Amino acid sequence: MSIKVAIVGATGYTGVELLRLLSGHPNVSVEVITSRAEAGRPVAELFPNLRGISPLLFSEPDEEQLASCDVVFFATPHGVAQATVPALLARGCRVIDLSADFRIRDVPLWEQWYNQPHAAPQLVAEAVYGLPEVNREAIQGAQLVACPGCYPTSVQLGLLPLLEAGCIDQSDVIANSASGATGAGKQASVATLLTEISDSFKAYAAGGHRHLPEIEQGLADIAGSAVKLTFVPHLLPINRGIHTTIYANLTDGSVDLQQLFEQRFADEPFVDVLPAGSHPETRSVRGANVARIAVHRPQGGNKVVVLVVEDNLTKGASGQAIQCMNIMLGFAECAGLEAPALLP
Amino acid sequence: MSIKVAIVGATGYTGVELLRLLSGHPNVSVEVITSRAEAGRPVAELFPNLRGISPLLFSEPDEEQLASCDVVFFATPHGVAQATVPALLARGCRVIDLSADFRIRDVPLWEQWYNQPHAAPQLVAEAVYGLPEVNREAIQGAQLVACPGCYPTSVQLGLLPLLEAGCIDQSDVIANSASGATGAGKQASVATLLTEISDSFKAYAAGGHRHLPEIEQGLADIAGSAVKLTFVPHLLPINRGIHTTIYANLTDGSVDLQQLFEQRFADEPFVDVLPAGSHPETRSVRGANVARIAVHRPQGGNKVVVLVVEDNLTKGASGQAIQCMNIMLGFAECAGLEAPALLP
Amino acid sequence: MSIKVAIVGATGYTGVELLRLLSGHPNVSVEVITSRAEAGRPVAELFPNLRGISPLLFSEPDEEQLASCDVVFFATPHGVAQATVPALLARGCRVIDLSADFRIRDVPLWEQWYNQPHAAPQLVAEAVYGLPEVNREAIQGAQLVACPGCYPTSVQLGLLPLLEAGCIDQSDVIANSASGATGAGKQASVATLLTEISDSFKAYAAGGHRHLPEIEQGLADIAGSAVKLTFVPHLLPINRGIHTTIYANLTDGSVDLQQLFEQRFADEPFVDVLPAGSHPETRSVRGANVARIAVHRPQGGNKVVVLVVEDNLTKGASGQAIQCMNIMLGFAECAGLEAPALLP
Amino acid sequence: MSIKVAIVGATGYTGVELLRLLSGHPNVSVEVITSRAEAGRPVAELFPNLRGISPLLFSEPDEEQLASCDVVFFATPHGVAQATVPALLARGCRVIDLSADFRIRDVPLWEQWYNQPHAAPQLVAEAVYGLPEVNREAIQGAQLVACPGCYPTSVQLGLLPLLEAGCIDQSDVIANSASGATGAGKQASVATLLTEISDSFKAYAAGGHRHLPEIEQGLADIAGSAVKLTFVPHLLPINRGIHTTIYANLTDGSVDLQQLFEQRFADEPFVDVLPAGSHPETRSVRGANVARIAVHRPQGGNKVVVLVVEDNLTKGASGQAIQCMNIMLGFAECAGLEAPALLP
Repeated sequence: MSIKVAIVGATGYTGVELLRLLSGHPNVSVEVITSRAEAGRPVAELFPNLRGISPLLFSEPDEEQLASCDVVFFATPHGVAQATVPALLARGCRVIDLSADFRIRDVPLWEQWYNQPHAAPQLVAEAVYGLPEVNREAIQGAQLVACPGCYPTSVQLGLLPLLEAGCIDQSDVIANSASGATGAGKQASVATLLTEISDSFKAYAAGGHRHLPEIEQGLADIAGSAVKLTFVPHLLPINRGIHTTIYANLTDGSVDLQQLFEQRFADEPFVDVLPAGSHPETRSVRGANVARIAVHRPQGGNKVVVLVVEDNLTKGASGQAIQCMNIMLGFAECAGLEAPALLP
Repeated sequence: MSIKVAIVGATGYTGVELLRLLSGHPNVSVEVITSRAEAGRPVAELFPNLRGISPLLFSEPDEEQLASCDVVFFATPHGVAQATVPALLARGCRVIDLSADFRIRDVPLWEQWYNQPHAAPQLVAEAVYGLPEVNREAIQGAQLVACPGCYPTSVQLGLLPLLEAGCIDQSDVIANSASGATGAGKQASVATLLTEISDSFKAYAAGGHRHLPEIEQGLADIAGSAVKLTFVPHLLPINRGIHTTIYANLTDGSVDLQQLFEQRFADEPFVDVLPAGSHPETRSVRGANVARIAVHRPQGGNKVVVLVVEDNLTKGASGQAIQCMNIMLGFAECAGLEAPALLP
Repeated sequence: MSIKVAIVGATGYTGVELLRLLSGHPNVSVEVITSRAEAGRPVAELFPNLRGISPLLFSEPDEEQLASCDVVFFATPHGVAQATVPALLARGCRVIDLSADFRIRDVPLWEQWYNQPHAAPQLVAEAVYGLPEVNREAIQGAQLVACPGCYPTSVQLGLLPLLEAGCIDQSDVIANSASGATGAGKQASVATLLTEISDSFKAYAAGGHRHLPEIEQGLADIAGSAVKLTFVPHLLPINRGIHTTIYANLTDGSVDLQQLFEQRFADEPFVDVLPAGSHPETRSVRGANVARIAVHRPQGGNKVVVLVVEDNLTKGASGQAIQCMNIMLGFAECAGLEAPALLP
Repeated sequence: MSIKVAIVGATGYTGVELLRLLSGHPNVSVEVITSRAEAGRPVAELFPNLRGISPLLFSEPDEEQLASCDVVFFATPHGVAQATVPALLARGCRVIDLSADFRIRDVPLWEQWYNQPHAAPQLVAEAVYGLPEVNREAIQGAQLVACPGCYPTSVQLGLLPLLEAGCIDQSDVIANSASGATGAGKQASVATLLTEISDSFKAYAAGGHRHLPEIEQGLADIAGSAVKLTFVPHLLPINRGIHTTIYANLTDGSVDLQQLFEQRFADEPFVDVLPAGSHPETRSVRGANVARIAVHRPQGGNKVVVLVVEDNLTKGASGQAIQCMNIMLGFAECAGLEAPALLP
């Protein structure tokens, strides 16, 4: 069985990642990729790795065309999907949105952080947050999935066993994250030139990052009550990869952390708990839809340190979106997502 | 149909690349991977990208075990395959050697450049040089294939149309190449520490590199007579990728170079001739078994400039080895090699 | 006035950094550089940036020669300085040790973390910890200075104003640090090959790093009582630079953090407090003897986040050692240390 | 003695490099730095390495102000200096132009490659080409110096001894160059984002680069007759550094190449000929005003291979501009340029 897929806004890095991964998916045919700016141009001209792989041309977004597909992915900046999604849902399409448009259930909170009115507030409540490790059942029945942000995926996966077990102090959790530069997108800018960010490292948005309310919502959903998070992202001089270092205080010192993590993720195809004492490397997930996690308890004290790596474009975006699609459509959850990471 | 495969010396970068690519091959089961130093250790411990992909353990090399496989790959330093290959061939195995042991037909020349006696000179003549674009038919019937070196693949593919057409001066050809650091292997060394070669660039072996005699042999085979090559390799501060810039003098100024290249490679699944005026990037072939080529004639003069990129571990080594295996065994030539490059 | 200087163990990265910086020092003449392994070889052969700058040859360590110098720097692995320093001090030399040998006053604690007996425990008490921002007066009169580690410098400078002001909870402080690969030294090793650590990021020693007891000692000295620190270092795929992100809980919410930091460091020549809202970049201190610091209070809550950058080889090692020398000898504190960072 | 200096267009990478180097120059006081876009802003806000080093603010370009300085540097895109230089020369200023405006004596040729009319063609003949190793005497008396391009500096220095000795075939010379990304400047652009060019390598402008006519003019000046050059530049994923590999055919096989190069540059303070068999690294000149050169004759044949490295921002631009200033003003030629390269 094969379905028809469209990608809206496929000129960015999550767009090309969707095309790369879907080119090997046994049940999918990508029929439409849209871009106002590049309409008429072969996708392989913009992304030379797709020469000989994808014969598609970018086209102007067209509701009829999109509605003829079974699934429409939105790989657009925030604010774009809101305008088009209602019509597509009304016509029976399934929509998987990689942007931030439907992630936050508190619409005024969304409007505050994204500094614009929400164009489809009525849909926010029915959107399913696409983190399979938490929401697999809901995703199965969803018509609209809001894919988690890249940082939020890593933080939530790292805290999931601890919050479910109720063994940490929820009033003081820290996530110190570092991301490769593809997280900043593919727009002309001085700030992300190679000459400005290579051979360097810095924090950014220490005063508050847009992913914070999304993460806090997700953590509260998992914990059943509020979690107070301090989140500081940093910029790595590499293309792909997120590394999150989580710090929390144990309220129950008797818990076997290694066992807790291994058991929680034992049946998860895309979360890999490393042996005790390990330190995951971002390169070990380069291009692969997997998060690798290690848990430490420095010197046997009450501080738990969780290390999480993922590829921000794969498990942090396009791979996870395809995982959600597989779940929604009843395909094998791993379909199209089985290739190992590229190392070295 | 599925065959059994063994890999000798799988602790290096061409070894892990074979494992990565073969994990997706529909007709292959990797049964044995050997390493004296790592015997008993799971391969996924050494290469964390293979966690959940390969359950194999390294084992001591054992002739019985190897001989039970249909195909044995050697991903060993030069000098190793020579000692074991004769016995395996005698027992009916097919052997694909990624090292330099059987590439050069002139045994004394090999012994001069590699500075040791050859242990199996009797097999050199029957080894088939595994460059499918030149030797596809011979590879089909081969029992022993000597895979081309990484630099030699790029230089030969770039010169192939010109030499076959007889339109350049064979007495003065230049190949200026640059390679990622995986080409130097995975041995402890000060010279290839990140702190010694990152954020830098240099030539090396300008006085003479071991790949020179191999390339000159291959070029002469193609041209039917000797080709005099100047070859200078350089070291790039990246993991993967070879870029070769070829300079030659046209003897026939009327040739349509773009057409010549496009026609020569029209039926080749793994050589991609870019449109006129293009400049291939190494990232466009990262992890993919493809060479991308552009041909230029600066200011319409008599100098032809050919630009070739490949991934030194893939089309320059392990991918090409699998391509040869596919040809030898009658599999689809692209089996296991269809995934696009990882970009960005 | 010019003094004679010797460097013991100048084949590593702190050694070449000392030579680079001292080449421009108006009051210093480097007379002796020792290395058993490279004795007789010109230093410029090992470090080509010193061609035309330093005519020195490495020599075998020789007590007479060293003792003829006014100041002897030890840029050796831990355990080496201990054996030689007593004799040099007895002969009136001043010694500046960049290794860990004399940093920790609790000798059994040192022996536990460094896993060997201390060879000169009697000298530990008289060594002055060479952090000028804390110990300037003691350094002036010191005969033996123990230079702080690279990570400890960044953590102590970032916490100094907060601990002196007594405005944070000392029972739960976190330092999340990331260092360039020169921090790992210049030894042949697989683990720090470009091909193993470039294009990647990871934590290491999350269970406990040797710099932890040094940092906790320094923080307690500043605070007057114990400080409980969680310290997790990470490895950046760059040569130089440390970035430390500090998290602490304010006990006094009324403090003006920006003013506190600006006032504390107003007279410090090598600590630069950035304007409110800033994020320091490691490239802004590349090769310069300066730490740049920014302080944040995310969303006005009780968590304080301090961001500190330094060059691990300069303010984190060799530059700070020269700063100490300047103080010890009564030179201008900035002598030889005034060049701006190399950016881009 | 101290002179007043102005820099026009100091927001780019050659501008900040001038400021970095001049901050340590004993005879210079930078009085004015202009930028229309950044007028009123402290330079240290744009370039954080200059915090505490330069108190200057950008100002609107103003002829009076500029004319009050002894020397005015233009670090502007081509086409800008032409408009302002005539008035400054008329008022007695010395002008050092880092752009391409006055490099090419053949005005129509300039207009063809730069695709615009020249605004001050009358000044082209009196401009002195600022390559000290060729034109030192003329620079001494110059009022207007046109600094060589970054690539042209490396190619001309590498060919200088060979062309002066008349020992190569001038009809077929190849320069294969690779440059760090600072060569592309500091403009917002997708093409030079870290995510587009890191971890990759490619040629560009293989059909013809603007530096070609400048190089051919310089080579002809040296040789006394035309030199036919093929020049292919490549883009390195690093910030700083040019590496040029030159290929030429010897017409006199008896020449001692090593001796030829050593003798030619024996008295040059900023050209370093490496020992026979060496391969210069770009990192060995990072931030230093020096070119390092090695000459090879592969397998003793008639091909000569010259390897040249320089920092494109230093000896390839701002450092060389200061060297010219020192010569023009009668300062020590090395003043402000003595710091060793930053390695590692």
